[in-house]
Amino acid sequence: MNFSSDNVTGVAPEIMAALVATNQDAATPYGEDRATQRLQDRFSELFENEVAVFPVVTGSAANSLALSVLTPPFGAIYCHEVSHINLDECGAPEFYTGGAKLVTLKGEAGKISSADLAKQLATAGTGVVHRVQPAAVSITQATEAGTVYSLDEVRAIAQVTHSHNLKLHVDGARFANALVTLGCTPAEATWKAGVDVLSFGATKNGAMAAEAVIFFEPELAASLGYRRKRSGHLLSKMRFLSAQLEAYLQDDLWLKNGAFANLMADRLATGLAAIPGVELRYPVQANEIFVYLPETVITELFASGFKFYRWEPGGDISLVRLVTAFNTQPDAIAAFVETVKSCLIIP
Amino acid sequence: MNFSSDNVTGVAPEIMAALVATNQDAATPYGEDRATQRLQDRFSELFENEVAVFPVVTGSAANSLALSVLTPPFGAIYCHEVSHINLDECGAPEFYTGGAKLVTLKGEAGKISSADLAKQLATAGTGVVHRVQPAAVSITQATEAGTVYSLDEVRAIAQVTHSHNLKLHVDGARFANALVTLGCTPAEATWKAGVDVLSFGATKNGAMAAEAVIFFEPELAASLGYRRKRSGHLLSKMRFLSAQLEAYLQDDLWLKNGAFANLMADRLATGLAAIPGVELRYPVQANEIFVYLPETVITELFASGFKFYRWEPGGDISLVRLVTAFNTQPDAIAAFVETVKSCLIIP
Amino acid sequence: MNFSSDNVTGVAPEIMAALVATNQDAATPYGEDRATQRLQDRFSELFENEVAVFPVVTGSAANSLALSVLTPPFGAIYCHEVSHINLDECGAPEFYTGGAKLVTLKGEAGKISSADLAKQLATAGTGVVHRVQPAAVSITQATEAGTVYSLDEVRAIAQVTHSHNLKLHVDGARFANALVTLGCTPAEATWKAGVDVLSFGATKNGAMAAEAVIFFEPELAASLGYRRKRSGHLLSKMRFLSAQLEAYLQDDLWLKNGAFANLMADRLATGLAAIPGVELRYPVQANEIFVYLPETVITELFASGFKFYRWEPGGDISLVRLVTAFNTQPDAIAAFVETVKSCLIIP
Amino acid sequence: MNFSSDNVTGVAPEIMAALVATNQDAATPYGEDRATQRLQDRFSELFENEVAVFPVVTGSAANSLALSVLTPPFGAIYCHEVSHINLDECGAPEFYTGGAKLVTLKGEAGKISSADLAKQLATAGTGVVHRVQPAAVSITQATEAGTVYSLDEVRAIAQVTHSHNLKLHVDGARFANALVTLGCTPAEATWKAGVDVLSFGATKNGAMAAEAVIFFEPELAASLGYRRKRSGHLLSKMRFLSAQLEAYLQDDLWLKNGAFANLMADRLATGLAAIPGVELRYPVQANEIFVYLPETVITELFASGFKFYRWEPGGDISLVRLVTAFNTQPDAIAAFVETVKSCLIIP
Repeated sequence: MNFSSDNVTGVAPEIMAALVATNQDAATPYGEDRATQRLQDRFSELFENEVAVFPVVTGSAANSLALSVLTPPFGAIYCHEVSHINLDECGAPEFYTGGAKLVTLKGEAGKISSADLAKQLATAGTGVVHRVQPAAVSITQATEAGTVYSLDEVRAIAQVTHSHNLKLHVDGARFANALVTLGCTPAEATWKAGVDVLSFGATKNGAMAAEAVIFFEPELAASLGYRRKRSGHLLSKMRFLSAQLEAYLQDDLWLKNGAFANLMADRLATGLAAIPGVELRYPVQANEIFVYLPETVITELFASGFKFYRWEPGGDISLVRLVTAFNTQPDAIAAFVETVKSCLIIP
Repeated sequence: MNFSSDNVTGVAPEIMAALVATNQDAATPYGEDRATQRLQDRFSELFENEVAVFPVVTGSAANSLALSVLTPPFGAIYCHEVSHINLDECGAPEFYTGGAKLVTLKGEAGKISSADLAKQLATAGTGVVHRVQPAAVSITQATEAGTVYSLDEVRAIAQVTHSHNLKLHVDGARFANALVTLGCTPAEATWKAGVDVLSFGATKNGAMAAEAVIFFEPELAASLGYRRKRSGHLLSKMRFLSAQLEAYLQDDLWLKNGAFANLMADRLATGLAAIPGVELRYPVQANEIFVYLPETVITELFASGFKFYRWEPGGDISLVRLVTAFNTQPDAIAAFVETVKSCLIIP
Repeated sequence: MNFSSDNVTGVAPEIMAALVATNQDAATPYGEDRATQRLQDRFSELFENEVAVFPVVTGSAANSLALSVLTPPFGAIYCHEVSHINLDECGAPEFYTGGAKLVTLKGEAGKISSADLAKQLATAGTGVVHRVQPAAVSITQATEAGTVYSLDEVRAIAQVTHSHNLKLHVDGARFANALVTLGCTPAEATWKAGVDVLSFGATKNGAMAAEAVIFFEPELAASLGYRRKRSGHLLSKMRFLSAQLEAYLQDDLWLKNGAFANLMADRLATGLAAIPGVELRYPVQANEIFVYLPETVITELFASGFKFYRWEPGGDISLVRLVTAFNTQPDAIAAFVETVKSCLIIP
Repeated sequence: MNFSSDNVTGVAPEIMAALVATNQDAATPYGEDRATQRLQDRFSELFENEVAVFPVVTGSAANSLALSVLTPPFGAIYCHEVSHINLDECGAPEFYTGGAKLVTLKGEAGKISSADLAKQLATAGTGVVHRVQPAAVSITQATEAGTVYSLDEVRAIAQVTHSHNLKLHVDGARFANALVTLGCTPAEATWKAGVDVLSFGATKNGAMAAEAVIFFEPELAASLGYRRKRSGHLLSKMRFLSAQLEAYLQDDLWLKNGAFANLMADRLATGLAAIPGVELRYPVQANEIFVYLPETVITELFASGFKFYRWEPGGDISLVRLVTAFNTQPDAIAAFVETVKSCLIIP
């Protein structure tokens, strides 16, 4: 009954089992173990191309490490104004880059548009010493609004990005949820569409604490190992991090978990949208629902034990966010919808 | 048979059990969960004083976060030249402090002396704008040489440190091993002896990836939460990190594990020292042994399946490091000694 | 005939004379000379309070050094979106603060409003570790639009700033021009209105390369000396920098120069505004004029030898910026107006 | 009578004259003026090769900017333990590089040896993520001990430096004094001997505040313009900085000034060395003399109005430093020697 976030969840049983299974014998530390070595092949296979993979424990670390190799200290990173890197990481990208600037773009439903990006870059002052120098574009897939960039949208952004000699980073904290919606291959969703670096999230979708920075041009990653160590993100018992990622990929667990979360979100959204007086804020394309609810309903939901965030508190009506996950109970979905109905539909 | 390091070990069964047990229900993320809340009390009780505790996944993160609140960007940190922060963290303290300088001291057996420290600080240029400003002293307990600072030594260093208005940090990656040797309380080994901040290690002694920054003056820690987040070290599913630390303290597991590792080291050292032609480099006071062995012996040991590092490769004789751990097999100790004996003692 | 900027000017004769006069005998370096010592008293007298003064050679250095002591690495600085610190210093504030974030506000005529500031700060997430922490507000006086904040406006911004425990910085690259317009004392324009730190500009108003960071609470400046040295801004022959500032204050040269530049701007603005087809963009309150001119006129002006910037190139009509200075020739003003007239008024 | 340093001097008359002469008309700011443009050609001609030149106001800025493009944040800079960058710049290289580490070497007479450097680099851990990565070597020419590296010494250091893929920086705060001693061309003393970047000093040898970063591989300097701006070192009225450098090179003023300072130092050293009880610490090869003097003599010298630093205070005898400059009075030299004589030679 907790729809606050997908990070309130525990660990998927398959992943916990992998951790237990990994706990045998000694292993070479700092990523020189076999599980970590296997990851390179495993991800290269998954993405149909040779990639460089760096496991870390948080999405903030993944994003910031990725951006730190794309952006010089005097660089600029273009991103949506509500992006996690801009709003929710306490300045991590600025820290890791040595003081780069995040230049924010507005955009409906959590998305930046290639047109707005092109417009901004056209007057950014490339080559002018007084101005921070455009270096990277970062988009979030799925977005903070629970929407998903179409492949055409990604391609258009990548085209603008590359035409200005910038690199394209994707914050994929909910990449599995996005990929399920896109219905394409991981390769199609990333480097084939022009993505240069991906923060590949697993924590929100069933891992304990596991993300991976994935470079589609491995040579871009030359300094990443040093930067990861220097930021305290090179685990000595790395195999326990790598084991999570291996289990996450094993038998498409990541896609199954993502698909289930999306299904639950779709069911919840459909149920709510059918109720008069309830309005969805954005199309529901992944596992997050933004919905306007009367405060009377919100009060009743809280009283019934549901947990979630008022995203934008209003007067009579507030915008709330509901997040589903790999282990959401279908019963909880039904109960939530029923509770709302009971408040709003006069029998 | 792997004596390379205590970080080649897996996870202590009690800690793995705690992780499994934690994996139930949803929990508030980012450390607002109950397990993390309990840690504050648990550590305050352990140290007989109110402390501020910040769990992180690596010792490098713990050390650098700790030092970053003690040292301004134009500050200097005094440490042993072979300390982990100076040699083995790829510049993490410099990164986290925004460019502070590590000023290194020599010293036998991995220890700095209060006299050398006093001498250095006397000519450090405090208040002179041309010079980096002394801000912190960092010692390692147990040291990189497998020795342990006596309480008198800690107190003397703390006295010099504080008389210059600096703060004293202890890198306690092997704090349990040191404490067992000291035979005193955690409080006596730290704040009662003048320690201001401790990196409390658990990973090398049985955790999966868990350390804690412990401030004995909680007000010193005001900015730590932001710095941890900003460096990507605030885990969303923090309870799985806190659970490791809780289990680590539960029923004195940490001390039992440390005592066992020390015992194995003592047994190994005693066995080796009794063999003619074998010379210990430092007193063995924790779980690390530095010993000179003929290369012929080293070759035989490797051939027999033992793993360890040549610390200082020599010609005929090299210095090797042997590290024991909470799960070292007594049989492996005996086998190692026997192998050395078989090479060196002509029957 | 060069209205491009007030930094295209040379050095005021009084200041050049002071440099020549200073060039005698030897002097203690690094600001321990008498001229620099005198500055402390001279500025304290000028501001009717004890201040701490740090001369530097550029406004970017002054601004960034000032902000670096007000803002932790995880802090946020609130400023206008077109402010120099945000747009024109290649990320200097981010560099000096170790990665703080500049949060930008919109606002007519180059000014932020206290109401907008209050609104932003109300939702800034103070105390929330995920968010950068509000630390400073920076306004520009006179603004980048050639306008001047009224004392009431400054006071209102300071009130909001201080009510959130932030500090207020003023970028006074054109402080003399602003003060002349305000017609109040330096103290009234700064600390009496709630300003905590001022970048006191002199270069644009007649110095060779001289600005001063002025702290109205001297204890705030404790680390400034180290930060200035560390950034390479502590001149060995500091007396030649201090001498510029002394001469700048001597006999109110700074106010005379500022008043003259303002007068020239007023005359130019008045002359232009009287011409049909010419429209001023902002009220002219200092020494900058933003005016819409037809491209035909702009072409003619360039052909006649006038220099200035197209600020916002348009189609038929562009916005241009004209800047007057302490040594603007009245004849050039008249000639400029006449040229515009000759293009637009059919005889 | 002030032998404290060569930075206690004023401005050479030729350079002051150039500043006065430059003060005419308006000029494009930020280095787009003609004087600054000419410098590129002037220095390229001087060094017999195309170089990239960046004027700045201090040696600390020159050194740190140079090192910041040679060294990543996780890099190491090898230098002498008494080098200015290590001891006297309050951590400026660490600041500008984003936290690189200065690894110090000992060495007689202020010089590092290529052999020691080779030894250090052999065990530096190149390619090992735990270790900061060797990136640059920085030597000082003339050294802090008033000695001069021979061309053979520079070449040997450069050879070691380049064989490890590092770059060689020279802190040439007293480059003119060194060059005069070497008796070779500027090209021979720098890029022909393997120097990659030079901090070309002028301030100590007659300028007001002028140094230049000179890249012998211009492509290395790609980011320097941004870094200079971002650090607040791009002067708006740059022509007044460039004019100093132009005048400094004009008619070999720099070499004349350097030769004169060296001559004065030689005369002073020769005079002192002839006195029984006086011992020179290092060979005098530039314009600095380190000499042991009895405290009774030091007291008498101070009483007679001479100024200089006790470099290493002792008991009865201290090491003092005497620095000559372009404008040292020959009479002062004679008087100093006579005063020492009068104390030590019993008539």
